[in-house]
Amino acid sequence: MTSKESIIHDTDLSRQMVKMGQAARQAARHLAQANPAAKADAINAAADAIASRKTEILAANKRDLEGASEKGLSTAMIDRLALDDMRVEGVINTVRDVARLPDMIGDVISQWVRPNGLTIERVRIPIGVIAVIYESRPNVTADAGVLCLKSGNAAILRGGSESFHTSQAIHACLVEGLSKAGLPEAAIQFVPTINRDAVGHLLSGLNGNVDLIVPRGGKSLVARVNIEARAPVLSHLDGICHVYIDREADRDKAIAIAVNSKMRRTGICGAAETLLIDRAAIDTHLKPVLDALSAAGCALRGDASVRAYYPTASPAAESDWSTEYLDSVISVKVVDGVEGAIRHIDQYSSGHTESIITENARTSEKFLAEVDSAIVMQNASTQFADGGEFGLGAEIGIATGRLHARGPVGVEGLTTYKYVVRGDGQTRP
Amino acid sequence: MTSKESIIHDTDLSRQMVKMGQAARQAARHLAQANPAAKADAINAAADAIASRKTEILAANKRDLEGASEKGLSTAMIDRLALDDMRVEGVINTVRDVARLPDMIGDVISQWVRPNGLTIERVRIPIGVIAVIYESRPNVTADAGVLCLKSGNAAILRGGSESFHTSQAIHACLVEGLSKAGLPEAAIQFVPTINRDAVGHLLSGLNGNVDLIVPRGGKSLVARVNIEARAPVLSHLDGICHVYIDREADRDKAIAIAVNSKMRRTGICGAAETLLIDRAAIDTHLKPVLDALSAAGCALRGDASVRAYYPTASPAAESDWSTEYLDSVISVKVVDGVEGAIRHIDQYSSGHTESIITENARTSEKFLAEVDSAIVMQNASTQFADGGEFGLGAEIGIATGRLHARGPVGVEGLTTYKYVVRGDGQTRP
Repeated sequence: MTSKESIIHDTDLSRQMVKMGQAARQAARHLAQANPAAKADAINAAADAIASRKTEILAANKRDLEGASEKGLSTAMIDRLALDDMRVEGVINTVRDVARLPDMIGDVISQWVRPNGLTIERVRIPIGVIAVIYESRPNVTADAGVLCLKSGNAAILRGGSESFHTSQAIHACLVEGLSKAGLPEAAIQFVPTINRDAVGHLLSGLNGNVDLIVPRGGKSLVARVNIEARAPVLSHLDGICHVYIDREADRDKAIAIAVNSKMRRTGICGAAETLLIDRAAIDTHLKPVLDALSAAGCALRGDASVRAYYPTASPAAESDWSTEYLDSVISVKVVDGVEGAIRHIDQYSSGHTESIITENARTSEKFLAEVDSAIVMQNASTQFADGGEFGLGAEIGIATGRLHARGPVGVEGLTTYKYVVRGDGQTRP
Repeated sequence: MTSKESIIHDTDLSRQMVKMGQAARQAARHLAQANPAAKADAINAAADAIASRKTEILAANKRDLEGASEKGLSTAMIDRLALDDMRVEGVINTVRDVARLPDMIGDVISQWVRPNGLTIERVRIPIGVIAVIYESRPNVTADAGVLCLKSGNAAILRGGSESFHTSQAIHACLVEGLSKAGLPEAAIQFVPTINRDAVGHLLSGLNGNVDLIVPRGGKSLVARVNIEARAPVLSHLDGICHVYIDREADRDKAIAIAVNSKMRRTGICGAAETLLIDRAAIDTHLKPVLDALSAAGCALRGDASVRAYYPTASPAAESDWSTEYLDSVISVKVVDGVEGAIRHIDQYSSGHTESIITENARTSEKFLAEVDSAIVMQNASTQFADGGEFGLGAEIGIATGRLHARGPVGVEGLTTYKYVVRGDGQTRP
């Protein structure tokens, strides 16, 4: 496969993007009425195509990796970009998992009959056209594409320039799947240029032909999207996740959960970034938990109270409380009980995931009720903040906004509803 | 009661608005945990206060009406603004109805247990702080205020300048209710100035202290909100609602529903603006339906096919198909069956409410499935598009956007959810 990227002039780009929007709208109309079996067939056929074109995909990925090392990308970014046999298998498995999820479109969510005989149904329908703007992970091309398809939405995918060839190769497989199942190829489109102006066009909403924008990437992308978007955005901000160790925490659970929340994978949004320790737990919990984190290779940045009891921690600056390290670093603070923890989280959290470690049900219920994040946990690792771990199947992201969908967003979060009212000639008095 | 409006300088206004935002956020935290009985008590006490202060409210309304006639407002606007004993009774009844609605906050929407023993609950919670920006109807002050309160949200109300004194008088009753029930008075705030810059401040989101903006008013307000808002907006666009009369429509139902959809009340968003008639129904349905509309006092604007069979209709221009008359005028077009109706609606509808009149179940199912509006109906008047008629209690508006909530938005649409995860020390492998 060779790159189809062409030199596109500004007016051409604008025209091309608007055309993509119109084609997506047409495809969305078709998909909204599509047979569930056709959608599942298309997704399975896409998985088959990824399997049979693995060599092409890996060759495209090699090309991206060469470009990346020329550009001097960080090891972490290159690692996220790189595919191998096992990762391609992972992509195929996720795609097949999505094919097997229940098809929710057309489901009657609730229904009732009014005294005048009108029956009212709330029926699940797709959102319409979804633009997904993501950075270098090439697997997002497959995940986002098939999640949108499963939920009956047309997708316009805009991948990062570093993974352009890999994403394009994967996208070709998705189109093959659509075609085999007799669905419109424009159901999943990939923006065929690395020109960054294309993002601006997507954010403009393509003349009303984009119903939802999903940004998946770093802060600067999300900030740009939130400023420029002229269509609704499914926010996916940082994960500044907190673990709070209460005075009544079981010490072994506290150690295991703190280490797992921080260190299992440090680069995901559900990784803990700040550890809060109850002042009344300093003598019992502080040293063993920090020893365990340290032994696991985690750097510690503590406030004055922490450093008084654990002098090897470096000092935390004010900015540490709002930093998403995505690395083997954690900020540690002593707080005054669950009230202090709630106050700290209220001020610094990004609204993603927070966990309390305690055996006291009243304390945990207070935390779970009053902490205002998408996911609140008791005695569990923040790294469970994941659509798969929640049993939702694949996810298009973790929403940290407050409307429409929160937490891991899977098929259901990519749907909406309409009211269907059936009468027999009723008029309103 | 005298007006508390003061001359506020720009920097003072900015500071005052930010303070309102902060106070609202504090109140929202309190309300999210408030006892359901306290919220219901506050709402009932507000209804009592409106009843006992009726004289004051009517006096304030008189002042607004004097200002309105000085400004030369239209009769329709003055009618919307005017209160009398009966309308105040209507406000009180709506407020008491809201008090009686079930309190949904804290409800477990769904729950499940994962194979690793984690229990996951989706729990209903308030959205947070809601800014409602509305035009001259003073009853919105009461409706919006108590709906936000019932759903556990803090409200910042910004009423139109024409109804400023009336709204302020009603707002004082809401505050009295809050105070009697021991809830923070900042739970329902009213912007105490007619300075239009206050709207700009609200749209800026008051430093992140506004979670949702609900505009209720004409096109120019909604357009401004959609351009300037830096917080999510619950869109409430025009209601360009359609009635489609199919070849298999029962003629009496067609007549009754067409007349009721258009003429019951012409000024509401659920009023029909366009009548579509199946080409195959021209001989049987066109004349009797148009005769009935005409007899009810409705002006007709038809396309060429309509005028060929009904010459007294004036000619419709292209712009008629996208005009919300809100008056005794209807545009009429002949279309090629249900397919033609769907195509026309797809092009011109504002996504509010559309109704098909037919006795053929296959035809109606096609229409109900393929028309992409918030509310689709069979054999029923579009004027049923209303929260009360749907059995949802009062409504804060009819949403024509696609995300979060569609159609009539009552208490449930003003809530969101969070995930509550309970474990016993689980870490993620």
